[in-house]
Amino acid sequence: MDFKKYTFKNLPKGPSKIVNLAIIGTGAVGKALLNQLSGLNRASAEVGYNVVLIAPSSSSPGVQERSIVTKNFAPINLQSWNVSEDVGTNSHHLTRAITSTGDVAEFLERSKRPVILVDTTGALDNQEPGAENELVLAQSYPLLADQGISIVSANKTPFALESGLWNSIFRRPTRGTAKRGLVQFSATVGSGLPVTGILQDMMQTGDTVRSIQGVLTSPLSYIFNQYSQPGFASGDGSAKNETPRPTFSQVVREAVATGYVPNDPRLILSGLQAAQQFTILTRTVGLKVENSHSFAVRNLTPKPLREAETVADLLEKLPKYDSVLEKLRTKAEKENKVIRYVGTAKLGVDNSSLEVGIESFDVNHPFARLKNDEICLSVTSDRYTEPIVIKGPGSNPEASASRILSDIFKLSQKL
Amino acid sequence: MDFKKYTFKNLPKGPSKIVNLAIIGTGAVGKALLNQLSGLNRASAEVGYNVVLIAPSSSSPGVQERSIVTKNFAPINLQSWNVSEDVGTNSHHLTRAITSTGDVAEFLERSKRPVILVDTTGALDNQEPGAENELVLAQSYPLLADQGISIVSANKTPFALESGLWNSIFRRPTRGTAKRGLVQFSATVGSGLPVTGILQDMMQTGDTVRSIQGVLTSPLSYIFNQYSQPGFASGDGSAKNETPRPTFSQVVREAVATGYVPNDPRLILSGLQAAQQFTILTRTVGLKVENSHSFAVRNLTPKPLREAETVADLLEKLPKYDSVLEKLRTKAEKENKVIRYVGTAKLGVDNSSLEVGIESFDVNHPFARLKNDEICLSVTSDRYTEPIVIKGPGSNPEASASRILSDIFKLSQKL
Repeated sequence: MDFKKYTFKNLPKGPSKIVNLAIIGTGAVGKALLNQLSGLNRASAEVGYNVVLIAPSSSSPGVQERSIVTKNFAPINLQSWNVSEDVGTNSHHLTRAITSTGDVAEFLERSKRPVILVDTTGALDNQEPGAENELVLAQSYPLLADQGISIVSANKTPFALESGLWNSIFRRPTRGTAKRGLVQFSATVGSGLPVTGILQDMMQTGDTVRSIQGVLTSPLSYIFNQYSQPGFASGDGSAKNETPRPTFSQVVREAVATGYVPNDPRLILSGLQAAQQFTILTRTVGLKVENSHSFAVRNLTPKPLREAETVADLLEKLPKYDSVLEKLRTKAEKENKVIRYVGTAKLGVDNSSLEVGIESFDVNHPFARLKNDEICLSVTSDRYTEPIVIKGPGSNPEASASRILSDIFKLSQKL
Repeated sequence: MDFKKYTFKNLPKGPSKIVNLAIIGTGAVGKALLNQLSGLNRASAEVGYNVVLIAPSSSSPGVQERSIVTKNFAPINLQSWNVSEDVGTNSHHLTRAITSTGDVAEFLERSKRPVILVDTTGALDNQEPGAENELVLAQSYPLLADQGISIVSANKTPFALESGLWNSIFRRPTRGTAKRGLVQFSATVGSGLPVTGILQDMMQTGDTVRSIQGVLTSPLSYIFNQYSQPGFASGDGSAKNETPRPTFSQVVREAVATGYVPNDPRLILSGLQAAQQFTILTRTVGLKVENSHSFAVRNLTPKPLREAETVADLLEKLPKYDSVLEKLRTKAEKENKVIRYVGTAKLGVDNSSLEVGIESFDVNHPFARLKNDEICLSVTSDRYTEPIVIKGPGSNPEASASRILSDIFKLSQKL
């Protein structure tokens, strides 16, 4: 049979609205986003996008990379933005060291067109914990929004810090002020999966979310999928049991070596990233979470290794503590289960609970069947008493960039 | 720990825009939608909605039910719209027999506010095949859109008929005419799951969908989940094999009796509903599908039973043909697989394929692990080389209504 491609004819001729974009972050996600933006079919779009600023990640404080900005908000040539010669010959492009978000705000405020600041930093979660510039950027979100700048972010930090910051980011505009910028953050959790979108749809339509459970930190998904696999039930004397099993520290070391876990795995092993993800998800459905440390989070780094350790030190000493996880794995397998690192939120009428840690799941549970670094979310609500389950690839810069692009489209409708 | 609920403070005070809604269909989905609309917090919404017309399903041609319309587009009281006394005492409400979509269009065209026609007919798939009024409604979509009326639909028919109708629904406005109505149809497939939304996001952001596979017809999901269950692998002599297995006709009969399959299962067993679903999904990603009969669709009704049979006759004679499916089940189980009724679309650069029928899946495949009438979709694309998989409850009027509401919100941004 012969199936041809439709050409969609209902699209207007050329954009009726142009939105200026300022991209912060030129890591894998930032680069994928710029690539996707340059590939959009502008002729058929309702909204056109001009990229007017590209700044390297604010989380590299030591590096003196220069940003590209344009004169008079002319669009940056996305085919050649990172070729320095082009910047020299294209009279619309300027290079400038953008050293503060104040610089960015000052530049964007002069735009006559609607403006979206796109923060792709932190999207790949490979930053050092506590990078100072990142904190400054995160804390400037409320002010940027007050100044009418809308924000699309893939950066967990601004949304996972103190609840006061969350409240300020989403605060109501004060009377008499100009229109406040809007904020979208669906790329902060779930890589390219529409995880927050599913929750926001439920909230907007008046549903009440009752439980959220998920394996959302892709490096931890990889570690546990390798470490505890279905089919190793103890005591049945099957051949499988004779396969030598890797220890936890071996799995971690191998995951760092193959790139499934960042070179510095401390942020991952501490559970902080998972805690940030669940802070954001549960805040999205209306739970009041003070910060990412205000609930129980299982730290996979043994206490004696937590402070003043280099990564090499940590990986070297980790085998001493393998027995802790070995016990959990063996106990689960006796019940034909596997262990997984999950977040679990229950939202009750009178009380709610949130925790992030190790739980065991039947070998037929979707979390038990994850492969590589796949992530998976399960949600129930008043309307979905049987859960919606979504799973997909973990770390995926292309997909994260698409999620950012969807957010940009969504915001642009309202600008 | 104590988690309180957030009150979201960033919401504007009262709607700045009002959209008039005309609801066609007062079945389970229509009623759930009206209920959800009346529960929306209007004070905190950006857009307010006035329901100005409620018409019973157009697919009940014999029934002389009267519709409710309002004088001067005053909102219908959603708490008491179906209480006839209220209609009598509320001077804004009129009852009128709406006998054609022309009547509806004529009424809506006088609205000074943006208008959305919401078609909830066919959403529960319990209509008789070929109901004439439904065809008329389906075929009037292009004209309604031309007249500036936007449409949100849960009705598969308009989107699964000839490709000419699809093209007309989404045609570009001709020069010099007023703004054309917009059309959203995400509730046509996947009950309450954001199935078309995932595909549309991919398309809009410039990704290319490569494969779509899914168990999307919830009655067929139920039938096959009951009929072919993991754990019945032949030849291992386990106790499970001694459990008496139901035949296909027994499962169908039981599914009709318990309500998982409509009283008239002919539309389901013919595969037509599944074919419609895959026509819509694949058209959404740009495949040119002539109609729901232009590709291979497995009909579960044996040929001799297809014509001029009553439902009772069909169910009575079905056991004669049980051996056909029994062979498929046994063959699959020998390979530790189960059989499922799925649609499969592959989109290639040079050629594409689409078919709907019975396939076997490893007992660990997500389709093999479905419960009750759960539905499940798996999608790959250039960016998602590993699939996104989403599953959730099948027939769920509350969730379908939420999906319609999401579409209404989405359209309203643009009106």
